[in-house]
Amino acid sequence: MQNVGFRRRRPEGEGRVLKILVIGAAGMIGRKLCERLARDGALAGKPVEAAHFVDIVAPSQPSSADFPTTCEAFDIAAPYVAPKLVAERPDVVFLLAAVVSGEAESDFDKGYAINLGGARALFEAIRREQRLSGGAYRPRLVFTSSIAVFGAPFPEIIDDDFFLTPLTSYGTQKAICELLLADYSRRGFFDGVGLRLPTICVRPGPPNRAASGFFSAIIREPLAGREANLPVAESVRHWHASPRSAVGFLLHAAGLDLAELGARRSLTMPGVCASVGEQIEALRAVAGEAAVKLIRRQRDEAIERIVAGWPSRFDARRALGLGFAAESSFAEIIQAYREDEHVGSFA
Amino acid sequence: MQNVGFRRRRPEGEGRVLKILVIGAAGMIGRKLCERLARDGALAGKPVEAAHFVDIVAPSQPSSADFPTTCEAFDIAAPYVAPKLVAERPDVVFLLAAVVSGEAESDFDKGYAINLGGARALFEAIRREQRLSGGAYRPRLVFTSSIAVFGAPFPEIIDDDFFLTPLTSYGTQKAICELLLADYSRRGFFDGVGLRLPTICVRPGPPNRAASGFFSAIIREPLAGREANLPVAESVRHWHASPRSAVGFLLHAAGLDLAELGARRSLTMPGVCASVGEQIEALRAVAGEAAVKLIRRQRDEAIERIVAGWPSRFDARRALGLGFAAESSFAEIIQAYREDEHVGSFA
Repeated sequence: MQNVGFRRRRPEGEGRVLKILVIGAAGMIGRKLCERLARDGALAGKPVEAAHFVDIVAPSQPSSADFPTTCEAFDIAAPYVAPKLVAERPDVVFLLAAVVSGEAESDFDKGYAINLGGARALFEAIRREQRLSGGAYRPRLVFTSSIAVFGAPFPEIIDDDFFLTPLTSYGTQKAICELLLADYSRRGFFDGVGLRLPTICVRPGPPNRAASGFFSAIIREPLAGREANLPVAESVRHWHASPRSAVGFLLHAAGLDLAELGARRSLTMPGVCASVGEQIEALRAVAGEAAVKLIRRQRDEAIERIVAGWPSRFDARRALGLGFAAESSFAEIIQAYREDEHVGSFA
Repeated sequence: MQNVGFRRRRPEGEGRVLKILVIGAAGMIGRKLCERLARDGALAGKPVEAAHFVDIVAPSQPSSADFPTTCEAFDIAAPYVAPKLVAERPDVVFLLAAVVSGEAESDFDKGYAINLGGARALFEAIRREQRLSGGAYRPRLVFTSSIAVFGAPFPEIIDDDFFLTPLTSYGTQKAICELLLADYSRRGFFDGVGLRLPTICVRPGPPNRAASGFFSAIIREPLAGREANLPVAESVRHWHASPRSAVGFLLHAAGLDLAELGARRSLTMPGVCASVGEQIEALRAVAGEAAVKLIRRQRDEAIERIVAGWPSRFDARRALGLGFAAESSFAEIIQAYREDEHVGSFA
């Protein structure tokens, strides 16, 4: 069932089926999204006809899928790529690919080329494909934005009308894509929706060097019996959602009636506002004092400074009203991690 | 004194002098800015060494200047242009060039190519020139944004924290440039400031077909003894500043200490909130009932609909605090028009 892409013809009268394109399919969220699509065999209540999974490295095949899947390596910043991917006229496009915040800051050209240039190339390719189709082609486009579009100083609770004043190149690139997404949608080139994801926690896999890495590490590592360092005070608050919720947001966005969004096409996703202290309490409840004792406390001023510029609490009213749902406590986030990553109890 | 550009060497020890680049120098505001620079011979308290005036058509030479001026036609969207202009290392760059709102809406490609592509090309050229200079080159960049970055629904008064939700491609392009301006400034590539201009009123010259044209026409045409049509109700409110104020904003921005701006580099400019009825009263006070009788009242639903989506009143507190100043009444706006355009009294 591999490598046949969208070449399978839709049988006449088969009814509505979907072709799906996932760009950024090898990332942590992308992999989980592709596995879920493969498992469900459907999206937004319609059977999946075929899926194309793309990333800068070839994504792995989902473990099972009863529709053809093509997994390929492409750089979305290369000019031939977006037109090629869109020529297959996918009905739903998930754009998850991005250079992460730290790299977009250290490599200015690469960040703009991929996070802005790649998205713009995709948007333009869809517009071109619509013209080629005589106006008939108008896919759903689900774009992952980030709470990095917001920059300090913040009010205590950030509502849906708060303005975008990013303080990083990554946040700037995401905010620009939100503006483009709204304009291209308003013009009818595609039906776009942007999802500002919370910090994803608990991230599986080895510790990474992202400034936000400790939020996951202080849960994941002790649950595996390993030490983790906490570089900030327990009073630090942040906005979290599980990988499972993130995949849920993407699936929900693919099926949503976007007319309700009007011209404001990007939504802050719901999440859990938790202090580090509350995270630790949730860990204690699940895994006991022995797990908590694996958390070392070595302050890191550089990380403290970065984290101080991050938002911590949102009122995600619009998204909640549209049916987006996340966990309601950090304990649930830990529970989702243990279930999804098959992590047993510590004790 | 023509066409010698920046080739004149700065004599050693002459002290601080400025090279100026104006992109969009043939437009209504651009022309007035260049005339003013020529008249003043100085900017931000420093003598002007040379000026380069550029537009899609060659700008006319200012009537007098005691520094060399070069007037040339270039398309800022052409890839060779920005590097060429910036290679002269102007100390102050005014970026006024833009495809107007109506054209950016009807010609999607052209609007993005010039309003976004042209600005980005300039920003990148400056970044490149900074690298070539070993980091020494870091010009002041004054960018004209627009209140079109805002989109309905609006609060009664729009403050400096209101979010950018443009409802036109033009507004989207300006909002994106504001984000880029902030990020490039934050990174130290240039010292940028964006000015969101009010609707400029009274525009001299023949009536144009812009939806906003009537705001000027109902003053300008009766003052010249000609009829003008009012396509909306007298209750319609809008945000105005004179061309003289617009030039004042640009000059003030060139000399401002931008450290106070922090990361939020774009400012809503002050203006006069006037209803059409108040505009007409101001006309009556200056030119009497005979002038007011030249205003026809033929409603135009298309224009009414467009204007209904425009903002009408701002609290431009940040800009006022930084010393930007506009007229304080519509009568003053008419007075500025009569003085600057040598329009006599009607009676």
